Amino acid sequence: MRLSQYFLPIMRENPKEAEIVSHRLMLRSGMIKQSGAGIYSWLPLGLKVLKKIEQVVREEQDRAGAIELLMPTLQSADLWRESGRYDDYGQEMLRITDRHGRDMLYGPTNEEMVTEIARDFIKSYKDLPKTLYHIQWKFRDEIRPRFGIMRGREFLMKDAYSFDLDEAEGRKSYNRMFVAYLRTFERLGVKAIPMAADTGPIGGDQSHEFIILADTGESEVFCHKDLLEQSVPDNVDYSADLEAERERWTTKYAATEEMHDAARFEKEVPEERRVSARGIEVGHIFSFGTKYSEPMNCTVQGKDNKMVSLYGGSYGIGVSRLIGAIIESSHDEDGIIWPAAVTPFDIGLLNLKAGDEQTDAACLDMYQKLAAAGLDVLYDDTGERAGGKFKRMDLIGLPWQIIAGPRSLKEGKVELKNRATGARDELSIEDVLQRFIK
Amino acid sequence: MRLSQYFLPIMRENPKEAEIVSHRLMLRSGMIKQSGAGIYSWLPLGLKVLKKIEQVVREEQDRAGAIELLMPTLQSADLWRESGRYDDYGQEMLRITDRHGRDMLYGPTNEEMVTEIARDFIKSYKDLPKTLYHIQWKFRDEIRPRFGIMRGREFLMKDAYSFDLDEAEGRKSYNRMFVAYLRTFERLGVKAIPMAADTGPIGGDQSHEFIILADTGESEVFCHKDLLEQSVPDNVDYSADLEAERERWTTKYAATEEMHDAARFEKEVPEERRVSARGIEVGHIFSFGTKYSEPMNCTVQGKDNKMVSLYGGSYGIGVSRLIGAIIESSHDEDGIIWPAAVTPFDIGLLNLKAGDEQTDAACLDMYQKLAAAGLDVLYDDTGERAGGKFKRMDLIGLPWQIIAGPRSLKEGKVELKNRATGARDELSIEDVLQRFIK
Repeated sequence: MRLSQYFLPIMRENPKEAEIVSHRLMLRSGMIKQSGAGIYSWLPLGLKVLKKIEQVVREEQDRAGAIELLMPTLQSADLWRESGRYDDYGQEMLRITDRHGRDMLYGPTNEEMVTEIARDFIKSYKDLPKTLYHIQWKFRDEIRPRFGIMRGREFLMKDAYSFDLDEAEGRKSYNRMFVAYLRTFERLGVKAIPMAADTGPIGGDQSHEFIILADTGESEVFCHKDLLEQSVPDNVDYSADLEAERERWTTKYAATEEMHDAARFEKEVPEERRVSARGIEVGHIFSFGTKYSEPMNCTVQGKDNKMVSLYGGSYGIGVSRLIGAIIESSHDEDGIIWPAAVTPFDIGLLNLKAGDEQTDAACLDMYQKLAAAGLDVLYDDTGERAGGKFKRMDLIGLPWQIIAGPRSLKEGKVELKNRATGARDELSIEDVLQRFIK
Repeated sequence: MRLSQYFLPIMRENPKEAEIVSHRLMLRSGMIKQSGAGIYSWLPLGLKVLKKIEQVVREEQDRAGAIELLMPTLQSADLWRESGRYDDYGQEMLRITDRHGRDMLYGPTNEEMVTEIARDFIKSYKDLPKTLYHIQWKFRDEIRPRFGIMRGREFLMKDAYSFDLDEAEGRKSYNRMFVAYLRTFERLGVKAIPMAADTGPIGGDQSHEFIILADTGESEVFCHKDLLEQSVPDNVDYSADLEAERERWTTKYAATEEMHDAARFEKEVPEERRVSARGIEVGHIFSFGTKYSEPMNCTVQGKDNKMVSLYGGSYGIGVSRLIGAIIESSHDEDGIIWPAAVTPFDIGLLNLKAGDEQTDAACLDMYQKLAAAGLDVLYDDTGERAGGKFKRMDLIGLPWQIIAGPRSLKEGKVELKNRATGARDELSIEDVLQRFIK
């Protein structure tokens, strides 16, 4: 993409309304624009990151055997009356009345709707196990939306729902999602630790939150330092028993504020291994058994021909919120530092003398060669001064910058800058191209 | 995908509520499930088609120089008060009040919101032209939703918005979208004819609807037969003048019911070339000049330093509705016939004797080889009888079926069936694989 033809509205000043660094950097780098209280438009750069995260989440869900569908944003109130949650949910649920006076709502989550789908179409134990997921916009009418997309009202969530015959099978589905979440966050370049968590309005008897440690986290968390240091499995056979992998993450102490047991923490974790920090929740998984299937009469024929209420769980990842969490844990004073997996462009190409025939020709040639090799390059072909170009490119945080000025081009050379380390190397054009083109 | 692990709830009976063939076939083939009046869940098969259409639409928008962003589903009423449309829009607009009593609405279209974005960020004629688009769920509270996703309430739309300095530049942007639409529908395998159309609640002085002819179309349309026979350009240089291409489509008579002039039709079109038929609207483009920018004070600095109200247009494609339109124009008595560009899977592989060791091994080998070559195969590995497998595969309409039974496999052969023509050829496994793997 040529910057002169793109839509990248950078802000030079720090926006006053932004209290935390991710909100500030997303506004400044032209990723989002506020369109209402807790409601954001995703400008082109922000949307690219959102889609990359969505795709990583999708791939790991698919790998774990979950099947994608897409439920609508609006739901009928009657469905929530069946489960009994319509009255329970409180003011965070955005309630709507249509032109015929029917009660509807903007889905904050989809347990009821997906249970209705299972009730209609899953008839026999032979159809199990089944995990269905979707990536769809949700709305929660937060009383005080803040921190940009970190605590917005309209937000993008991946939510999966498992259906099994009994608790033992349900545990296997839970474990598959548990491991898929470890893999997902690892690929996104963040360290997310599963922690015992409260089940809240979803309900159920077991639950884990996946927490990224960051100073600006919304709540306090406590864990054994080993968990921060152990690695996530590379290749997972989801048809195998994943109980051991789950145990590797759940035996050592890790708990959110609500579930924290100070006495146990001190007893089980040696003092020098105790981590107490702020954390950002990026995923939350639940096993709630028959909480929805029973009142909604979602049953299947079991092996003995008796009808059985399906055993369920639900599994959420805050897709839009993850962007904020990634920025909170990956930035410096100059701007964002994108992990390679989610960067909006792979490379920034800076033409330091746009309009100069030779510089333009050399840049265009590199741009076309990189694009032909499938690399997504943001080519700064604008007539601005070098200082502004450097600042903007650092702000938007692409992992690599190729800096091309007339002086070094005379010797066939450009500078390659690593955004994370700040290291700049003068290299021949051929060497730089070879580095990216395999 | 192995069918035994997929979620494909086929209906054997014709659903009573479905009045038209696309609605009937989408329900029967497990593409959608109604979740409320005019509100649908997209089951896995339907979602795959939706995403394919979305991607073709996106690629042609990008090619035409439009830039993708994503605006939220909910909008503030105040924004619509600025343009004066809040009171005009009537009961089709779903109006919502949040917990703080603020008036909001579920966007039926986005002229106001995108104009606010342009107002904030487009400051100079040097930033022009700019066409921004998004693909997002919309809601129109139809008084009587029907025909499944063809006239639903929650639907997926691609809407683009152009911003230019003056009418002459605006016309160029309009022409780029005009040609991009021709290309988009051509790639989707349907013949859509641009027709002079009424501007309705969007407003403006010129407008074209893109219409697919189908017996079940919602309105009557009239056109010169030449338009049905002429071809769409393959390679388009969007930086060139596209006026001639536009004229090639707009000089000959073509009009929707509202714009039809019977006298002109008879005068301009020889009797044997007059087409009067039913049509389905799949796209609608508008040029409305300063209708939104003036009341909303969306101005840029012009070349002479004077402030100028931006000249605008908007350009919609009904992404979800297109699925219905494609099925209406591409099916037979056995089911859907997908054009290659939007088929949910490339190939259906039917194992006629699942459980038989040799048949299973041969099918698995083909499945893996095709998948490794990047082909998306639905492998029917279920234990059902052959008759049911044939019917289901015809119903869901994949363009190719590979039918593998133990008898022909003994001679190393399978049958290859072309869904559209019904032709079945017995071929060696090697020949079949070679046909698909390049």
